[in-house]
Amino acid sequence: MTKKHAISPLRSENYPEWYQQIIIAADLAEPSVVRGCMVIKPWGYAIWENMTAILDEMFKATGHKNAYFPLFIPLRLLAKEAEHVKGFAKECAVVTHSRLETNESGELVPASPLEEPLIVRPTSETIIGESFAKWIKSYRDLPLLINQWANVVRWEMRTRMFLRTTEFLWQEGHTAHETPEEAIEETKRMLECYRKFAEDFAAMPVIHGRKSDSERFPGAVDTYCIEAMMQDKKALQAGTSHFLGQNFSRASDIKFMARSGSEEFAWTTSWGVSTRLMGGLIMIHSDDDGLVLPPKLAPLQAVILPVIHDETSRVKILENCNKLSDELGKKSFGNKPVKIEIDGRDMRGGDKLWSWIKKGIPIIIELGEKEIASESLTYTRRDNMIKISEKLPNFIQNLPAILKSIQDNIFSKALEFREKNTKEINSKNEFYEFFNDENKAGGFAISIWDGSKETEERIKRDLGVTIRCIPGDSFNPGRCPFSGNPSKYQVVWAKSY
Amino acid sequence: MTKKHAISPLRSENYPEWYQQIIIAADLAEPSVVRGCMVIKPWGYAIWENMTAILDEMFKATGHKNAYFPLFIPLRLLAKEAEHVKGFAKECAVVTHSRLETNESGELVPASPLEEPLIVRPTSETIIGESFAKWIKSYRDLPLLINQWANVVRWEMRTRMFLRTTEFLWQEGHTAHETPEEAIEETKRMLECYRKFAEDFAAMPVIHGRKSDSERFPGAVDTYCIEAMMQDKKALQAGTSHFLGQNFSRASDIKFMARSGSEEFAWTTSWGVSTRLMGGLIMIHSDDDGLVLPPKLAPLQAVILPVIHDETSRVKILENCNKLSDELGKKSFGNKPVKIEIDGRDMRGGDKLWSWIKKGIPIIIELGEKEIASESLTYTRRDNMIKISEKLPNFIQNLPAILKSIQDNIFSKALEFREKNTKEINSKNEFYEFFNDENKAGGFAISIWDGSKETEERIKRDLGVTIRCIPGDSFNPGRCPFSGNPSKYQVVWAKSY
Repeated sequence: MTKKHAISPLRSENYPEWYQQIIIAADLAEPSVVRGCMVIKPWGYAIWENMTAILDEMFKATGHKNAYFPLFIPLRLLAKEAEHVKGFAKECAVVTHSRLETNESGELVPASPLEEPLIVRPTSETIIGESFAKWIKSYRDLPLLINQWANVVRWEMRTRMFLRTTEFLWQEGHTAHETPEEAIEETKRMLECYRKFAEDFAAMPVIHGRKSDSERFPGAVDTYCIEAMMQDKKALQAGTSHFLGQNFSRASDIKFMARSGSEEFAWTTSWGVSTRLMGGLIMIHSDDDGLVLPPKLAPLQAVILPVIHDETSRVKILENCNKLSDELGKKSFGNKPVKIEIDGRDMRGGDKLWSWIKKGIPIIIELGEKEIASESLTYTRRDNMIKISEKLPNFIQNLPAILKSIQDNIFSKALEFREKNTKEINSKNEFYEFFNDENKAGGFAISIWDGSKETEERIKRDLGVTIRCIPGDSFNPGRCPFSGNPSKYQVVWAKSY
Repeated sequence: MTKKHAISPLRSENYPEWYQQIIIAADLAEPSVVRGCMVIKPWGYAIWENMTAILDEMFKATGHKNAYFPLFIPLRLLAKEAEHVKGFAKECAVVTHSRLETNESGELVPASPLEEPLIVRPTSETIIGESFAKWIKSYRDLPLLINQWANVVRWEMRTRMFLRTTEFLWQEGHTAHETPEEAIEETKRMLECYRKFAEDFAAMPVIHGRKSDSERFPGAVDTYCIEAMMQDKKALQAGTSHFLGQNFSRASDIKFMARSGSEEFAWTTSWGVSTRLMGGLIMIHSDDDGLVLPPKLAPLQAVILPVIHDETSRVKILENCNKLSDELGKKSFGNKPVKIEIDGRDMRGGDKLWSWIKKGIPIIIELGEKEIASESLTYTRRDNMIKISEKLPNFIQNLPAILKSIQDNIFSKALEFREKNTKEINSKNEFYEFFNDENKAGGFAISIWDGSKETEERIKRDLGVTIRCIPGDSFNPGRCPFSGNPSKYQVVWAKSY
């Protein structure tokens, strides 16, 4: 007998389409009339709000302050850092007019052309650099640790909700330091902050390391990243932290009086995570019945469904649901009060149950006459779909432990999947087979690499596989299986989003 | 003897310039290289964060959910509501290209023209309407209560930081209802929410009421507002709530199956407050020494300045400061833990003290050897600048009461000022004198008005005075002092921002 599932197609049938269907089934977002832009619906936005609250707290705990800089970047500013503008020129939304007017044919058309075009920020290094140059005068003003929550626009040709959209929401940290050592330390500190968020809150195991030169942020000296394995064995870059050296401080003239008395360029960093994290969260945990959410990021930890078969018992059942909700609301999970909702909508019980399964809520509680009579309740754990009957006091007492168990379980599942699909490969044939076999679709291959762009490009061309990161510092592991050259690096290869 | 003040010019000398100087002295914001846009600096942004957190909680408590809609509005969508596009056409930033390229002269220029220009949202009724039309099918989907936190752009000719900037931050609520009565109730509920926020948190007394037709939001049936009196006796519109009737639902085709079975257009509302509130907050409370903040919105309620005259006592003094900070941090004010910072910067004591006075922090505590010896501390209340010595345990115990006293005091001061400068005037001569006398600059005049646009326009032309709001419902107060016609309205007139 085949089990029927709520989502069609199944993951095994068509993973990309399954992803789109999950977003619709869980009511997270929808495409908008504006090409490449999406509408983030309340359930999706509530998850994003939880993400931002946790990250914001982490940033503040590490000494960062929030500020806000203009949406628009004058063209000449963006152009100041040569690599940077080269990297973003192909995806810039350009504002050229400041008014609309009705022309002779009665059509509404752009009017009042601007003297200088404005770019809708794709990232804010150059506009924030203008401020940093003013704010920083002496080493006493350093380190300067700023974060911004904002929307950014990159005109993408092929878009997918959350993973790659023309407009997206993100945070971008921008910091300036006296020495390269301090800036590198900051770059790594914020990468660690992202790792912690991904693993401890999103239940998303990640590998972390440095990017190869060809995958670096335009204008950076070094880009560090966290990468997670999705259920189709592809990698998703979930956060990046850049050591910018003095590239942007030279471009923006961010100079300071050093302790020595000489004038020096500051050492800067930038780092960001975006609504792309939502895409990773959806893809890594969800199943063929819908979204699966880690309890720490779920907008609600549990929902109570009153089971009313007979109208005469409605009042009594609702009273019991309210009492239970009050009791559960007194419990904490992850230092926050547990959030509960009673779903009193007038609809078929099965449809109601499945609407919450699809939304990925960690615990679904059913409470009807039968349960009240036996002082118990029935609950379904979304992570394993097991339905359990439990005495009320036991459940209330155990709620935090059950939520922790769900959080841990989905992390373990994701970690196990990654470990099963990560392989150290140092033979070219085996490598090509690992990624070429359509049924297996690869995974993460840890291989020796000679550090050359040629090798990287050849493998990308042959297999569509790229270096996701260089996890450790350089060392001397042996010979590159692709070129036969002696090699300093061991790197992680994968197909990626 | 004339007291020296930290801000130049004084309020009495040049109020508009004083306002700009307050923003600089308190380090709230600065103009950016982008015309009409500002940079919100950490101290200013932290106040805005407190505002948004409180408002967000109020919106959620009244059943609203946050969502996010695209930054860009296709031109044809904006144009759907005729009044609306007419109202915003003159201030639209228009995106016309999606790429930059290097031309033959080596210049970077816009490329890839868009088929249809995109407008950077000046407000989101039309783009959100597209989603509402999809989401709403039946009366069961109503009311739909959505809020968005976002940046918007209106190309303003004359800008002033916070009060009127090309880009600004705001929230915009958008709701849809079954009946006009419910929509009007929502419009008024959210106006009351703004009133409560302004008075109970920003310590900003406001009058509230309906706008006259000429001051209505473009496309609305009715606009309601809150208005506060600044220290120059001008009015500042601090929040608006619009009953949109069926105007936008007709434009966006937001239809639902009614209980009767017939298909009907929904009744919608929208309401918003913006970073303009920051401008009001600055102008209403600050004095000639800098910013004055209500404790409920201050990023920190108190700062501790260690007074170190002798390096040998540094460790002891800092230990005592830390201990005090820990004790104070255990106290609550307005249901939140009190936030304290120790300012250990290496700078002249007087400069340090004044830097905090200018920043408007409610309480400045000084702690040195003298205070430690007598188990006391010295503190300055920012609202009245009175310096007091107090035994440590007393101060710790009284901190919440002192903060409440500051919050209440600045509200009372503002209310008293408004009351002193509000006058019922029903003679034309007296009215013209009230607003014409440069030394008095008027205030709020409560007068009978015949309801005609002609009267409104004449007074605006003669005096630069407009109707700020119509506080009550229509009634029959007498004859209009300007036209002599019988009148249904009593309205509030003022010069305004």
